[in-house]
Amino acid sequence: MKRVFTVLFLCASIFQSSAQTIEDSLFIRKIFDEVLTKGECYEVLRGLCKDIGPRLTGMQGAYDAVDYMKAVMEKQGFDKVELQEVSIPRWVRGDVEKASFTSKGKTTDLRICALGGTIATEKNGVSASVVEVFSLAEIKDKDVKDKIVFFNRPIDPKPIYTFAAYGGCVDQRYAGASEAAKYGAKAVIVRSVTHLDDDFPHTGSMGYDSLYPKIPAVAVSTKGANLLSKALKKDADLQLTYMINSKILPDTTSHNVIGEIKGKKANSYIITGGHLDAWDNGEGAHDDGAGCVHSIEAVRLLKVLGYQPNHNLRAVMFMNEENGLRGGKEYADQAKKKNEKHLAAIESDRGGFTPRGFYIDFDDSVIKKLLRFKELLEPYGLHIFQKGGSGADISPMKDDGVMLIGFVPDSQRYFDFHHAESDTFDKINKRELELGAGAIAALIYLLDKYSDEIFEDVNTQ
Amino acid sequence: MKRVFTVLFLCASIFQSSAQTIEDSLFIRKIFDEVLTKGECYEVLRGLCKDIGPRLTGMQGAYDAVDYMKAVMEKQGFDKVELQEVSIPRWVRGDVEKASFTSKGKTTDLRICALGGTIATEKNGVSASVVEVFSLAEIKDKDVKDKIVFFNRPIDPKPIYTFAAYGGCVDQRYAGASEAAKYGAKAVIVRSVTHLDDDFPHTGSMGYDSLYPKIPAVAVSTKGANLLSKALKKDADLQLTYMINSKILPDTTSHNVIGEIKGKKANSYIITGGHLDAWDNGEGAHDDGAGCVHSIEAVRLLKVLGYQPNHNLRAVMFMNEENGLRGGKEYADQAKKKNEKHLAAIESDRGGFTPRGFYIDFDDSVIKKLLRFKELLEPYGLHIFQKGGSGADISPMKDDGVMLIGFVPDSQRYFDFHHAESDTFDKINKRELELGAGAIAALIYLLDKYSDEIFEDVNTQ
Repeated sequence: MKRVFTVLFLCASIFQSSAQTIEDSLFIRKIFDEVLTKGECYEVLRGLCKDIGPRLTGMQGAYDAVDYMKAVMEKQGFDKVELQEVSIPRWVRGDVEKASFTSKGKTTDLRICALGGTIATEKNGVSASVVEVFSLAEIKDKDVKDKIVFFNRPIDPKPIYTFAAYGGCVDQRYAGASEAAKYGAKAVIVRSVTHLDDDFPHTGSMGYDSLYPKIPAVAVSTKGANLLSKALKKDADLQLTYMINSKILPDTTSHNVIGEIKGKKANSYIITGGHLDAWDNGEGAHDDGAGCVHSIEAVRLLKVLGYQPNHNLRAVMFMNEENGLRGGKEYADQAKKKNEKHLAAIESDRGGFTPRGFYIDFDDSVIKKLLRFKELLEPYGLHIFQKGGSGADISPMKDDGVMLIGFVPDSQRYFDFHHAESDTFDKINKRELELGAGAIAALIYLLDKYSDEIFEDVNTQ
Repeated sequence: MKRVFTVLFLCASIFQSSAQTIEDSLFIRKIFDEVLTKGECYEVLRGLCKDIGPRLTGMQGAYDAVDYMKAVMEKQGFDKVELQEVSIPRWVRGDVEKASFTSKGKTTDLRICALGGTIATEKNGVSASVVEVFSLAEIKDKDVKDKIVFFNRPIDPKPIYTFAAYGGCVDQRYAGASEAAKYGAKAVIVRSVTHLDDDFPHTGSMGYDSLYPKIPAVAVSTKGANLLSKALKKDADLQLTYMINSKILPDTTSHNVIGEIKGKKANSYIITGGHLDAWDNGEGAHDDGAGCVHSIEAVRLLKVLGYQPNHNLRAVMFMNEENGLRGGKEYADQAKKKNEKHLAAIESDRGGFTPRGFYIDFDDSVIKKLLRFKELLEPYGLHIFQKGGSGADISPMKDDGVMLIGFVPDSQRYFDFHHAESDTFDKINKRELELGAGAIAALIYLLDKYSDEIFEDVNTQ
């Protein structure tokens, strides 16, 4: 008799589980149908890129972007849209960015841009002969005193996942200036971190080590870097001159923008976010306008389809990812202070390309549980569910027991536009963007619905 | 004692199998390293697109393309490069493609192009009022006599794999004219099959049913279709006029181009191909320049890495896929005549986008065997290995026991450019193209190396 009950119980479980799978499968199909036929993210992104455009933290564009995103989510009927004050640093590019080298009486212009955080040159610029290096370590073996150090290590084309190559190349941009200053260099010029051979300088943040003098730092386009490198082979004594007039202003305030739809549990949250600030040379279409509209759209999709979440769902637009991460830190601090229980945080900050899956920065045992969702998500081209990095803005919540998730789209074209004036709205494909929003919505739906099972072993303090 | 031997044997097998896996894994990594650092396919495609460009079967460009691809493979050191004669049809677009509609005294121009295979209009064009329909079936319920039928069914945005949507939409382009002629229509105008809302008309082949009169058929851009549809709602009697002067010339000859590297087995072949002809309005970059250079590059990669194939490996550039499939048919006929044993044929004709995997049109039991390669290929973003359609050019070999394989790249952007003047070289991303060639090379390597196991149960006649 006991056996009969066991069998009946098993049958009931299987029946329930398979009914659930069908229900989930149908709901996820609805999400994608909705976004592909009535998606709003592409037009929201158009507004952010074309009506606002450049929006480095502290720029008028960044303030306009805060107002715009707040208005978008209010219009879309989010239950609550809040601005969260953030103290922000201010680095301003200035209006002069010129470079050229002179060899044997001939002057060749180079396209450069100041790296974020650099000091200006003197008014007449910096002029010196050039020492080309391919790594930070090389500097100590060269005579760089009173010279300009030219970091020319190209991004490695071999890693299939291009972010892996970025990580292996960006040290010269971030730490090159102080390493060169340590040995007496006057300034640095750094090859742009991009897979393309083109004439756009790609900016990005740099920092100074307080032990050494601050010296100016600029990026040069890959075409320019190749020109300079070639010229140096013929004339090791050529003179490079560049001038920039960037400046650092005192800290001020800006905001994170937080849109929320209410769940059944009062103090429990699943969030998805991107960063609202973007480098000032382009429109920040892929980095990270796409991530912002992905997040808003993912939450809106669940709302418009009538899903009643268990947890409060938030779309968070973080301020100041590019040169300070102040928004991400403030969000994490406030969440802790208010004792808001965050189950999971998703970040989209790898562009608006065709979705491939998710990287999860959390306990292996919990990641394993997520694998049961694979068959529901694979029909949408989502094959990657593995341990990996999540996102800069959500990283300050890592020690607070939050499951951190990075949305992973196709990475091949990302560094073509990254941090350059070419990161514009026309580089966005509408369907690819929409599929990304659908992917994130589907994941939130599954995390929210099955949170009891997924998070049962997680220490909820 | 017997047990000890069994255990030893098992250990040896496992050791061998794992050593093989490591060897394969290293070789496949070499393929991708080679193509991403010293790939030639992007520059070969540049030549095909920019130096030659439009190359519909029978055009001078198509003859130039034959010579060009032959020269490319000879220069790359293929063991043998042959031209295979193909009898070809000739349809010529002509130099007049004009359309406009007049409503309440106002004339609006539309961007159109003749569909491949259509007859011309009379010299002064065709003028009539318009009946808008959304399916072939609808026509019989409408009064279309002496009118122009406007097929305006948009491509369905919902299928994630966009080719599924194409299949559901292309009937109006291919068969619309004869279906309209059956009920007395004078001409047809067909909405372009694309996901974009733009002003490029997308051409493509159409055919006539010999039971009914031949009437002219053109494609209109999606923007134009929307304009016309809107105007019809306000004025059902508006007059549409269009003129085209395309013509059909007698058959002549052209060629398939076949490059080969020799394998150990004299009469056994694995081939990979694309089609060399392309619609005459663009450069045929994605359709199917990409497939041609994928194929050449895949074979070249194996050669340059010193792989000694078991089977003869061929890169085949088929002529006349777009409007006749004569090249594919001729290749299959000749293979049969010469009793060339073809194990597998791969086709790349879905663009040069990031690779996702392969569709396989073959016995399930053999497809199952290929799944053991999954773990070797997944690190390169290749997750799809399933039953599915292969490619038009290789389809004539289906009944000859050949494993037919379609290379599957990301499909989101394909129909943005398909058959339109916007299918140009600048739409190709170098890395995405190279990864495609790497994917095909890796698959050929595995099929070739493990052919005895994979094909052991296949009837080899």
